[in-house]
Amino acid sequence: MSSWMVDRWYVAAWDAEVDRAPVARTICRVPILLYRTLDRRVIAMRDACPHRLLPLSMGIREGDSIRCRYHGLKIGPDGVAEEMPLKTERLNTAICVETYAIAEKHRFVWLWVGDKAKADPALIPDFWPCSAEGWTFDGGHDRVGCDYRLLIDNLMDLTHETHVHAGSIGQPELMEAPIETASEGEAVTVSRWMPGVDAPPFWRGALKQDGPVDRWQVCHFVAPSSVIIDVGVAPVGAGATLADHDRQGVRGFVIDSMTPETGTSCHYFWGMARNFDISDQGFTARFKRQQGGVFAEDIEILEAQQRSILANPDLKLRAYAIDGGGVRARRVIERDIQGGPRAPSNESIAA
Amino acid sequence: MSSWMVDRWYVAAWDAEVDRAPVARTICRVPILLYRTLDRRVIAMRDACPHRLLPLSMGIREGDSIRCRYHGLKIGPDGVAEEMPLKTERLNTAICVETYAIAEKHRFVWLWVGDKAKADPALIPDFWPCSAEGWTFDGGHDRVGCDYRLLIDNLMDLTHETHVHAGSIGQPELMEAPIETASEGEAVTVSRWMPGVDAPPFWRGALKQDGPVDRWQVCHFVAPSSVIIDVGVAPVGAGATLADHDRQGVRGFVIDSMTPETGTSCHYFWGMARNFDISDQGFTARFKRQQGGVFAEDIEILEAQQRSILANPDLKLRAYAIDGGGVRARRVIERDIQGGPRAPSNESIAA
Amino acid sequence: MSSWMVDRWYVAAWDAEVDRAPVARTICRVPILLYRTLDRRVIAMRDACPHRLLPLSMGIREGDSIRCRYHGLKIGPDGVAEEMPLKTERLNTAICVETYAIAEKHRFVWLWVGDKAKADPALIPDFWPCSAEGWTFDGGHDRVGCDYRLLIDNLMDLTHETHVHAGSIGQPELMEAPIETASEGEAVTVSRWMPGVDAPPFWRGALKQDGPVDRWQVCHFVAPSSVIIDVGVAPVGAGATLADHDRQGVRGFVIDSMTPETGTSCHYFWGMARNFDISDQGFTARFKRQQGGVFAEDIEILEAQQRSILANPDLKLRAYAIDGGGVRARRVIERDIQGGPRAPSNESIAA
Repeated sequence: MSSWMVDRWYVAAWDAEVDRAPVARTICRVPILLYRTLDRRVIAMRDACPHRLLPLSMGIREGDSIRCRYHGLKIGPDGVAEEMPLKTERLNTAICVETYAIAEKHRFVWLWVGDKAKADPALIPDFWPCSAEGWTFDGGHDRVGCDYRLLIDNLMDLTHETHVHAGSIGQPELMEAPIETASEGEAVTVSRWMPGVDAPPFWRGALKQDGPVDRWQVCHFVAPSSVIIDVGVAPVGAGATLADHDRQGVRGFVIDSMTPETGTSCHYFWGMARNFDISDQGFTARFKRQQGGVFAEDIEILEAQQRSILANPDLKLRAYAIDGGGVRARRVIERDIQGGPRAPSNESIAA
Repeated sequence: MSSWMVDRWYVAAWDAEVDRAPVARTICRVPILLYRTLDRRVIAMRDACPHRLLPLSMGIREGDSIRCRYHGLKIGPDGVAEEMPLKTERLNTAICVETYAIAEKHRFVWLWVGDKAKADPALIPDFWPCSAEGWTFDGGHDRVGCDYRLLIDNLMDLTHETHVHAGSIGQPELMEAPIETASEGEAVTVSRWMPGVDAPPFWRGALKQDGPVDRWQVCHFVAPSSVIIDVGVAPVGAGATLADHDRQGVRGFVIDSMTPETGTSCHYFWGMARNFDISDQGFTARFKRQQGGVFAEDIEILEAQQRSILANPDLKLRAYAIDGGGVRARRVIERDIQGGPRAPSNESIAA
Repeated sequence: MSSWMVDRWYVAAWDAEVDRAPVARTICRVPILLYRTLDRRVIAMRDACPHRLLPLSMGIREGDSIRCRYHGLKIGPDGVAEEMPLKTERLNTAICVETYAIAEKHRFVWLWVGDKAKADPALIPDFWPCSAEGWTFDGGHDRVGCDYRLLIDNLMDLTHETHVHAGSIGQPELMEAPIETASEGEAVTVSRWMPGVDAPPFWRGALKQDGPVDRWQVCHFVAPSSVIIDVGVAPVGAGATLADHDRQGVRGFVIDSMTPETGTSCHYFWGMARNFDISDQGFTARFKRQQGGVFAEDIEILEAQQRSILANPDLKLRAYAIDGGGVRARRVIERDIQGGPRAPSNESIAA
């Protein structure tokens, strides 16, 4: 009775979060252990020794293997036992721990949730700005005490910025720009095109020139649980359009990928990819700190929302005009789950 | 399966606890938001935005309305939407949050729990000493981790003072005075009349004269969940009787009103109304501090009792002679609930 | 649906833990109160006043009786009411609290869990080294957040010392000595005989002579939930054998008795009895501190194991060669329980 898609890739970690030392992380209710082999491959296995279930993350890595800290069963990177607790006992290679398909791409470690036989790296969401030439990308990771879908709702509707981020990035004029919501297959897009406006200071600094700009904000829901927000400005007359604004100005992508931990908690991987000032590490560090502060404002709201949902079991979430993007994203998820096991939802659409 | 009466007024707050800023309080398992309009009316509404359920108590009051801090839905004091999150969206006045009937009387804010159509201010318990001419009233509010009925038991039997309040107000001689328990309709009374006794220091100070006194303690259970204790002394010969002791001496009422929060927690509103030294604010402040200290002794016992009830599910509460008042009060509650849905009770009467 | 044997004696406390002041302790899910009478008998009763269930452990001992701190009901050491809350109320000696059979032996206070009529002191496990002439015994008590059977598993297999106690007592050579597992009736034994080995420093100091030794470690499971480990060394040639090593060298018994608190927590009573340097109190104190430190390493592992069992409900504990002793001990327990109500087990044997 899970509320997430299966047979999908989910972000398990930032690339830099996983190194030789074991990292424990619960993903879609399963305790998982992550570490890298000497040749830098990421290994993911169930974080429980097949012998007496002590978390293997408490164990000791020996070469590319993990030795359990309770009785010393040694497990290789393929999950198969390599040494019994008692050296005199004959090795039983039927003893093994479940391992998971892993792929590393676009600065993230992706874990396949579902039937391992179906894991295909070609299915990894295309976060191209995170790894393309001429771009730079950095960000952070927070554990949030809410259903991951509340974060999708949040990100597919940027009008919340006015209220939640009143003290930081909220700009009332965003509320006045018309939005367009579209979907095709599993993709959902919420677009805001603001032609001939004053550039806010951040974007003027990025563009390094004065004068009116065409500005855009395009939120993309990417199944199973990411939101990529294409943001930027181009000088008026440079020829940028909603359909084509790749080379006319400065551009960034707010990257948000949510991985369920339990039904009411998730991992939030967030960051910013940009195609300007890409060698300015001071800019990168300052922006990451600012973005972390903005998302802390969201987290306070989202965790309060989750507690309120649990405290008001007779009430349902309602959707208004601004929620079109989130509603469609939830439909994509639910449709997919219903193909498999049925997911309960407290969403009622009153658009 | 609640253990409290419905279609009744319950104390939601002291009058002074509620002002312009929103106050969040769970009453009978429902998260409630309280605030005052500019003309000082108290508004009570479900503490969850009808849009995405963020607690409205996290919102911002604008005039007499509340604006949700997530997407900015604005709700009027009648609970009806006044402004959509997106200014361009047509207002849908079908969007509303549940509001509750409120009455202010005897220094308390009362909230109607049940069918709003039946809310009748005439049904508010008559706490006359809290607001009568020639009387003064003050007190406090504590959240207690116990079933509210354990507090009723506690207050309908003052013999516990000897043990629980040994270090403060406990007086062994109270144990020797005979008590009389009576009930009529929903009213239950436990009376103790002590003729020709020495006045304890507190009462001698109040009376401002020496010599023997007639002393009384009369506990009144007032449905659905209050206990009012009429206490005082009159000089011997002044003609005071159990039936008539209103003007012969000095008199106070210990006011106790318990409002269920959950099945195992409640709000405890307590205070003292008195008809002597009514302008002596120093006395009022000192007495409130003392009363708070005495009730803290009760709270320690009551929360331990609640934990023990849960830890010993095979045991039942038993009633002895001293518990007659509490037993009858619980019967009043249970009889009323059984008219509605059946309430479980772990009370077994062995009087 | 309990996972422990009933109609058995369990350790409730060290003798010195119980004195005149009431001690509260939950044993096999039942809140229990322990104290001593003036003539030093230990009394055990349900820790809930029969009146309103306040823990009697919050009460005041008066002579050999306990007076409840709520309304003053006085309970004698036989569990029968001796005084009502109201002195004028006729004493009802049908009012009583459940008492439990208690026996004091081998430095422990034992409590009979089950049908009191069957309590027979002859059934107390024979911890003779804890009280025999020429021996000394001391130890400690910890509350551990795990099923008591995980501690039995732990103690019936000492190979875990190499990994869990790598920084303290772990010795890899123990892993190489062959073990023999035997059982008869409810007794289970895991024996390790190491002839002609170097004595480790601890044992050389105890033996007070150099030269090779015969060394032994014999783990005895003693139903319902103790493990006694016979350890020691004798000079080569002194004639010690696995069957007879009582007088040829120095010997100690690691005493471990586990008493269930809930299904996932227990009391751990541990200590060391020895037949050498028995008057050296400094040795006793130092060894107890060291042993406490070693067991703290186990507790960290055991509580992590318990959490992992709960977090991985689809996985089962597996048994390898080293687990033979624990597996047989669990079978003894399960067989006994199945005679009564069926106990669930997550043990799957793959030895």
